[in-house]
Amino acid sequence: MGEFDLIARFFTRPPRPGGPTLLGVGDDCALVQPSPGTALAISSDMLVEGRHFLSTVAPERLGHKALAVNLSDLAACGATPVAFTLALALPRADAQWLEPFSRGLLALADAHGCELIGGDTTQGPLNLCITVFGEVPLQGGRSQALLRSGAQVGDDLYVSGQLGDARLALEVFRGQLSVPAEVFEAARARMETPSPRVALGQALRGVASAAADVSDGLIGDLGHILRRSGVGACIDTDAALGLIAARHALDADQALGFVLAGGDDYELVFTAPANAREAVQAASAHSQTPVTRIGRIEAEPGLRLRDAQGRLLQRQDQAFDHFK
Amino acid sequence: MGEFDLIARFFTRPPRPGGPTLLGVGDDCALVQPSPGTALAISSDMLVEGRHFLSTVAPERLGHKALAVNLSDLAACGATPVAFTLALALPRADAQWLEPFSRGLLALADAHGCELIGGDTTQGPLNLCITVFGEVPLQGGRSQALLRSGAQVGDDLYVSGQLGDARLALEVFRGQLSVPAEVFEAARARMETPSPRVALGQALRGVASAAADVSDGLIGDLGHILRRSGVGACIDTDAALGLIAARHALDADQALGFVLAGGDDYELVFTAPANAREAVQAASAHSQTPVTRIGRIEAEPGLRLRDAQGRLLQRQDQAFDHFK
Repeated sequence: MGEFDLIARFFTRPPRPGGPTLLGVGDDCALVQPSPGTALAISSDMLVEGRHFLSTVAPERLGHKALAVNLSDLAACGATPVAFTLALALPRADAQWLEPFSRGLLALADAHGCELIGGDTTQGPLNLCITVFGEVPLQGGRSQALLRSGAQVGDDLYVSGQLGDARLALEVFRGQLSVPAEVFEAARARMETPSPRVALGQALRGVASAAADVSDGLIGDLGHILRRSGVGACIDTDAALGLIAARHALDADQALGFVLAGGDDYELVFTAPANAREAVQAASAHSQTPVTRIGRIEAEPGLRLRDAQGRLLQRQDQAFDHFK
Repeated sequence: MGEFDLIARFFTRPPRPGGPTLLGVGDDCALVQPSPGTALAISSDMLVEGRHFLSTVAPERLGHKALAVNLSDLAACGATPVAFTLALALPRADAQWLEPFSRGLLALADAHGCELIGGDTTQGPLNLCITVFGEVPLQGGRSQALLRSGAQVGDDLYVSGQLGDARLALEVFRGQLSVPAEVFEAARARMETPSPRVALGQALRGVASAAADVSDGLIGDLGHILRRSGVGACIDTDAALGLIAARHALDADQALGFVLAGGDDYELVFTAPANAREAVQAASAHSQTPVTRIGRIEAEPGLRLRDAQGRLLQRQDQAFDHFK
């Protein structure tokens, strides 16, 4: 199987008629025309074997995850997915691997109406690079995208879904932790097939003041919001502990560590004015995505942790950094 | 140096005011608003060490080349570059390498008014994935992009610039060939710092009937045009031999092999009606890019080679394929 057979067989489908894709896979470029009155939100994520996924992961799940982590960036901006490119470095052209990989990838793409419009295929150490495109409405020449920079003092702080379970699964894989089989399997699904919070992101446009996706751990990604907004925050650790599904299989200190600095969660962390609590709940209900209020934005820079009794906790959790 | 310091130090610059980039590096997504009346041309290319470049290449040249090969895809569509994302897997965060790499990359970006708007940075085997965005005018709802599919029987066949010198340099690096030092240095510059034919591609809109960039070798990339257009072609090998600058350092058979199947050229192969010869010359002059007429489009499928005496040549040259 050659390079172009491989692309034709696993990665070529006709563009959806009437959609924004004027030309899909097969030419030097794809052509996309965003809907009138929208801007294009663009994000790239690269996944490397042994770092973003284990070599043992089922290819179908890997296909899902490679797109999911990119859709999660669109979700953080409140964008509606429209298309993506896929660049693949593969050790060899193996149909046994490519067939389920492309199935997992395209199933998630179809679920979000996100078309594969182009990319590249090369021989090399396994590496998946997706660039994803979404639409965000413009109003009076300004985009309605959720940004990291809009958090205001007094805003509530929220997180969607669960945090920390993906990290728990990784620690089990690494042999650092032992939990009951059903706890591990649920956590493993979180790690291998995250659900990008696309519907929630869209529902939060005009409601949330700032948002980011949690990929490097809550502390790190909330940190981006705080720095870009010029504010600080306080997290209620008891509320945060409720975010990890497997909390009963862990001691509280370890569970809190996974919640705060686990990574690989692909949830949204966002802020909204205190008078928008009903609107946040409505967005949560509309998108069928649970959200948990875990703290508040404060004027004092930095991040503080308080327990239910109001005591300040000192911890050393750090965000994931590829080069630290 | 951590991941975010690295991005801030080497890869973050403010978007150009009034340009299509509403939001650049630093949020979950970038935001781009194509100019009114245009579609966005999109292409991704991934470069792997040892396959697309040698580990010994100067980082500044590699930065240039990583973007150049992507701009070459925009050139093939006649698009005007506007922006790109860069995803990088690096063995380590090495400022000595990153500084010249980013210098070479951004110098070429600036020369084409193409803004770095986002991307990803991760630890892993060296891998560079760029996704590039260009604008193509729409007319009556149809894009004016040059496509591979428009070649017509009777059209002339052209190639820009030079073909085969990059491959010559590679063969010298591999120890398969020996040439005078000045021939090697000129060929090496072609291999390491290709010039994407962006101005020519734009000038050929409305003139050329089909176009592609030559990255895998002329036979392979012309083959894409022929298949998608449902036509064949005949190449005049004497005209084609004029495309390799180093022809005097080679025997004719080897020179022709490099021209036909060398790869890594990043020139344009294109077709145009015979009555458009003056317009093609005007596009060449306007873009200050030489073009050579090397053959004709014919009804009979496949590619034929004829010498100046009209004799049909039989050769075994093949396009580069990553998995063959």
